[in-house]
Order: sequence, then structure tokens, then C-alpha cells
Amino acid sequence: MDLVIRNATIAGVARLKDIGIESGSIVKISDRIEPRGHEEINAEGNLVAPGFIDVHMHLDKALTLDRYDWATREIMATPRLTSVNESNKVKRTFTVEDVCERATRIAEMCIVNGTTTLRSHVDIDPVVGLIGMRGVLAAKEACKDWIDIQISPYAISGFDDAPEDAEKLLRQALDMGADLMGGVPEADKDGNSHVDRVFAIAKEYNFDIDFHTDQAQFETPFALPYIAEKTIVEGWQGRVMASHCFGLAHHKPEIRQKAVDLCREADVSICCTPFTTVNERVIEPVEAGVNVSYMSDNIRDTWQPYGNADMLQLALFVARLGRWRSNEDLDHLLEMGSTGAAKAIGIKGGHGLVVGNNADLVVFEAKSGHEAIITQAQKLWVVKRGRVVAQQGELLV
Amino acid sequence: MDLVIRNATIAGVARLKDIGIESGSIVKISDRIEPRGHEEINAEGNLVAPGFIDVHMHLDKALTLDRYDWATREIMATPRLTSVNESNKVKRTFTVEDVCERATRIAEMCIVNGTTTLRSHVDIDPVVGLIGMRGVLAAKEACKDWIDIQISPYAISGFDDAPEDAEKLLRQALDMGADLMGGVPEADKDGNSHVDRVFAIAKEYNFDIDFHTDQAQFETPFALPYIAEKTIVEGWQGRVMASHCFGLAHHKPEIRQKAVDLCREADVSICCTPFTTVNERVIEPVEAGVNVSYMSDNIRDTWQPYGNADMLQLALFVARLGRWRSNEDLDHLLEMGSTGAAKAIGIKGGHGLVVGNNADLVVFEAKSGHEAIITQAQKLWVVKRGRVVAQQGELLV
Repeated sequence: MDLVIRNATIAGVARLKDIGIESGSIVKISDRIEPRGHEEINAEGNLVAPGFIDVHMHLDKALTLDRYDWATREIMATPRLTSVNESNKVKRTFTVEDVCERATRIAEMCIVNGTTTLRSHVDIDPVVGLIGMRGVLAAKEACKDWIDIQISPYAISGFDDAPEDAEKLLRQALDMGADLMGGVPEADKDGNSHVDRVFAIAKEYNFDIDFHTDQAQFETPFALPYIAEKTIVEGWQGRVMASHCFGLAHHKPEIRQKAVDLCREADVSICCTPFTTVNERVIEPVEAGVNVSYMSDNIRDTWQPYGNADMLQLALFVARLGRWRSNEDLDHLLEMGSTGAAKAIGIKGGHGLVVGNNADLVVFEAKSGHEAIITQAQKLWVVKRGRVVAQQGELLV
Repeated sequence: MDLVIRNATIAGVARLKDIGIESGSIVKISDRIEPRGHEEINAEGNLVAPGFIDVHMHLDKALTLDRYDWATREIMATPRLTSVNESNKVKRTFTVEDVCERATRIAEMCIVNGTTTLRSHVDIDPVVGLIGMRGVLAAKEACKDWIDIQISPYAISGFDDAPEDAEKLLRQALDMGADLMGGVPEADKDGNSHVDRVFAIAKEYNFDIDFHTDQAQFETPFALPYIAEKTIVEGWQGRVMASHCFGLAHHKPEIRQKAVDLCREADVSICCTPFTTVNERVIEPVEAGVNVSYMSDNIRDTWQPYGNADMLQLALFVARLGRWRSNEDLDHLLEMGSTGAAKAIGIKGGHGLVVGNNADLVVFEAKSGHEAIITQAQKLWVVKRGRVVAQQGELLV
């Protein structure tokens, strides 16, 4: 075998196991694998878990903090349009090489932190044109041996200003090598028609869809129910993600409940940044049976100055803000960021500690998921398609 | 000199400096210190900052997670009395050696994370008697060469049940080697009389006071204004800390404002766990000129399963929850956890990068406070009273 991981704790499995890996897949899980692997890892009883999937990033804009004048903390309280405009100023400085270099750095931060697949949105608008798309495509190619990158172009400024040009540009991006497409209903006056337009294009391309949904923190548009209904009407169940969903926190429990039930019915996944209203956007949907994950979103750019591309750190935020207390809940939280997230974005090859699945794994310096979250455990080894690609925070490739 | 730290970035200082340390104090800060120190550190342009002060811990109860049956996440929603009762079950297992061993482990976690002084509350009640006090006193003695521990005994179950016995036990604890005393108004039916009793004892002992204040998350007692008024009446300005202050979030802005103004007038400091209502409990008081710091509180015990004794991690929580965005705000946040906290608990010898002050320092792998918080920088070296006591997460003593 290419790689054998010995003495592994696997969530939900009583005894330590050896994990055999060949040609990028898990081929055997048993008490003892006799033959030595070409490469060997002794997990020494530590937790071996499926890699994290960071389902919502913005590689094109990441790590541009130094190009921005951080006037005051007030900026986050401004309407979305202000943030878009501030961001546009910085996007004028982008080049393809620049985007590729920053995107690659984020990919490196991801993999050493145990994230083996990420989904990146890419702004497509008149300011940046296709520069972001070209840069992230180049990064995807440069990193393809050690991390999978899904690319989701979207018309961040909507279609209202110049419907034909905006759609033409977006289609150019889709043709260049997108894996799916995105949308953002509140970018247009009529959010529902934005959703309709995106669905029409996505069906033409046979693409999954990822909507920036109800991002406003101080107004209350509520696109989520329409997205879920449309998903059912178009037969796109299991292929739609609703990202953010701040709107859930602005509505009464019975309205939230209805929206969340619709998401479950439509198999629409939700993903959230874990810094506000965790109860409404994470806990309630999880309890209603919706597939929920958490994500980095923007990293050190005009939208937010924070971010370490570390899903384990995000899990701790969810846990503390959500006041999750039991070991079982915390173990489940870790799975939300790996197998749950994999389901949400449709990972090919299967994700999780099961024979036949991709060997995308992380070995934590902890005996359990809850211990890993609480102690913010070191990621001892990260394995991507059967290859050891990172060790204790160092990239090996 | 005993120790010279070279090429140090100091907050607010334009050029790199050398820092000379002798007999536990900073004796020189200049562009270039010629003589070699007995020990030398090359900071290589990284930030050298005053050590963190964790102003509110519970060493006696810490690290007892494995003695508790974590039924559900619901426990946090229960009234305070339930938490006290659950905690009492575990406290019956305490021995002096056990408390000392766990307290020492927390002290080690603190110092490697750059916390050079901590304040620990200690439960004094009929269940645990003086066992917690004896254990923490033993830990204080065991760790005295590399961390300062302030001990604050308090009658966690109040005085109502057996006023004379409770006060007698508390006084025994104070006589054993307390540095200050604590109180918790909501433990008694008449919170104000609890405050009065604590003040009477504290004045007799000439002790500072640290009140667990307005901890309820679902009711709205509001002891804070009375504590501030009493502080002024008794002339105890600058000697009183109000810990938690969840109550601030349950009142209207004008009532909050009044309470916060009273705190400033009475020089009552506030300290908060940064996981809820950061706006009301941290940002508003800071903007009103109150001395606010953040703290670990319980670590992996019946009150909460979390905690890494890492003030830099807590700073990131405050920053993200408070949506602090500017570099200046984040730099100030770091200072709130060091020089601000030092002022709050009255560190002798002076704390901060000034000649004459204690040489209690941490060297971050970052060029600034905001970079340290955002990147969760490694603590390269920790210096306690002029001695290098930890390096990159490893205790050296």
C-alpha cells in the first residue's frame, strides 16, 4: 500500500484501527494491516478524521488588507453597497499573477490546517472583469496536486445596471473553467428575478448554485424561502447552497421555522460565518435536519480583517457562541465541517473514514473531535489523496 | 545586565529598540545597548509587549471536565443555582493535592501563552471548605518563581443559609494568605446587603474586592450601580472589580450609560468573558472611559468545557464579536489585556514597556498588536521578572 496510518482513533469506532491507502483512496480499515506501507504514519491513538472542507472563501480578494485604509470600525455597519464600493477600489489593483499568488497562499494556509478541499467564489463585475477568475484558475492549477479548489463565479454587482453585458461577462467566466456558479439576490432590485436568471443559466450549464443569501444585518430582505421553493420547482434538490443567511435572525421563530423546513425539503444546504446569530443560523437549522456548515468567508480583505483559514478555529467559535456543551455535539460539529460540508458541495469520490472513499485525512493531536476543538489541537499530518502533504503546520509539497 | 532583548518593536515607538533588564526590572530602553547581557534575545523586529494579566480565573475548579456528566447543552440555560449544585457534586472529589496539581497545570498554560500574572477566585463554601484555598495557595507557592497568582476567596453560596458560619469560614480563608476578597451579590436574597457585608470585611482587612456581578443571563438583577455607589461611599475607588456584568446587556441604553458612568466615576474596573453581548459589556464601557479587560473565567470545568488560558485567543474573540476593524482598536485591545488589566488588579512594580517597571514581557512572532491578534501569533519568548521562562509554547522552568 502507498500509505498506512496505524493506531488511529476513528470517530464512533471503539478500537484503534490501521488505515490502508492506495491510489488516493482508503482501501482497508482493520485492527492490524500486516504489510508495511510505502509510507507509514503512527497516529499513536490520535484522531484521524476526514479533511475539512471550507465551503465558502473568496480567494480573489484575500490578503489585501494592506491596500485598504481602515478608517474606523464603523465600516461594517454600513450598507452592503458601501462595502462593495470600497472593495472595488482595491480590485482595481488586481493582476492575474497577483490574484494567483494570494490565492495560492490561502490554499497553503488551508491545507496545513487540514482543509483538503475549498470552494472559492470569484467576483465577476465590470471593475475586475475576468482578472479574478483567471488568477484563481491559475492557483487551482498550481495547487491541484495537494488541494481541490471549486470555483464559483458570480455577478457580485448584479445585473440591473447592464443586464446583457453583466450576463455576457459571467458566461465568459463560466466557460473558462467554473465548477459551479453563484448568485446574490440582493444585488438587484428584484431579488427573485436575480434568482430566476441564475437558475436559468445554471440549468443550461448543468451547474450547482451557491447563493450569497440575505447578507444584510440591518435590513430584512429574505430571499431564502424563494431560493428553496425555486430549487424544488427546478428539480435542483441537493445542488443549492445558501451562504450566510443573516436574514434568518431577523424574523420571528415561526417564519424562521418555515424557511428552515423549506430548506430541508429542498435539500438546500446552509453555510455560515460563526460570528453572529449562531443560534438562528446554525443551531436551529441543524436541529431541523438541514445540512449546515461553517466557513472562512473573506480572509484579511476589505470585507473583514480577520481569518486564518483554520476550520478548527471556526469550530471553536461556533461551539462557544452556540454554547454547545456535550461531547456528542462537539463531535458532530467537527463532522459538519468535513463530511457535512462535503455533502453540501458534492465532493466526488466520497468523503469520510470509509473504505472506497478519498484518502483526504487529517491526524489531530487529540483523542476525539471534542478534544480537538476544545484544545485547538495541532494538525500532526494532513493527507490529500493518499499523499502526506503537510505536517505540524508545515507544507511538505 | 541580566537580559538584553534586541531589535524589539515596542507599541507606539517608531524605531527598533534594545531592552535592558536587571534584577527583574527594565533598566534601559535605547536604540543600542552596548554591553552584552548575561542572556540575550534577538527579537528580530518582532513585537515585545507587556505580559498578559488574566484577571479572572477559577484555578480550584479548573480541568475537572472528566468528573462531570455532560448531559446536554441545555445546562447553560439553567438558573445559576443549578450550576452551583452541579459544581458542588464535583467539588466533593477535591483534595488539596488535586487542586494544587490542576492549578499548577493552568498556571503553566498561562505562562507559555504569555500571561505573567493571574487572579484566581477560590470557592469558600460548606461543601469544599478550605480545600480549594489550601490547594491554590500551594500552587501559588509552587509557581512563584515564574508567575504571580493573586488569590481571591469568596462565599460562592452566599451568607443567607448560615450567616455566621459562612463568614467565619471566609475569614479563615482570608487569614490563610488571600491577596484580596471576592463577593457575589446574587448568591443572597438581598444583594445589596451581601455587598455591604463584603465591603465591611474588606475594609477591615484593607483588601481590594472583586465581585461576580450580574451573572444572570435570563433575569435582570442589576448590582453594578450599587457596587459603584458603595465604592464611592467607602472611598474604595480603584480597588474594586466588577466581573462579568451580563446585566449590562439586559437594560436600556440610558440605564446602561448611567451604570457605566458610575463605574468610571468610582474607578470600578469591568472584566468580561468575550462570548456574549460584547457590545454592551466591552465596547460601550471602553468608549465611556471605563477600564475594561477580558478574562478566561472557568477552564474546562462544570461551568464551561472550554478554555486554553490564552489571552491572545480571547482577544481575537473580542475583536471578531465586537467587529473591531482598525489597527488602532486592535492594538488597544491587546493593551486592555496587559497594562489595562494590570491597572485593574493593582500590579506592584509597574507593568508596561517603561524603564523601572517589572520585566514581565512577551515576544510575539508579529510586528504589531493587531497582527498578533489576527494571526494568533506564536509567543516566541515569555519573560517573568527578567527571566526567560517559556519559549514557543514550552515551559523552561
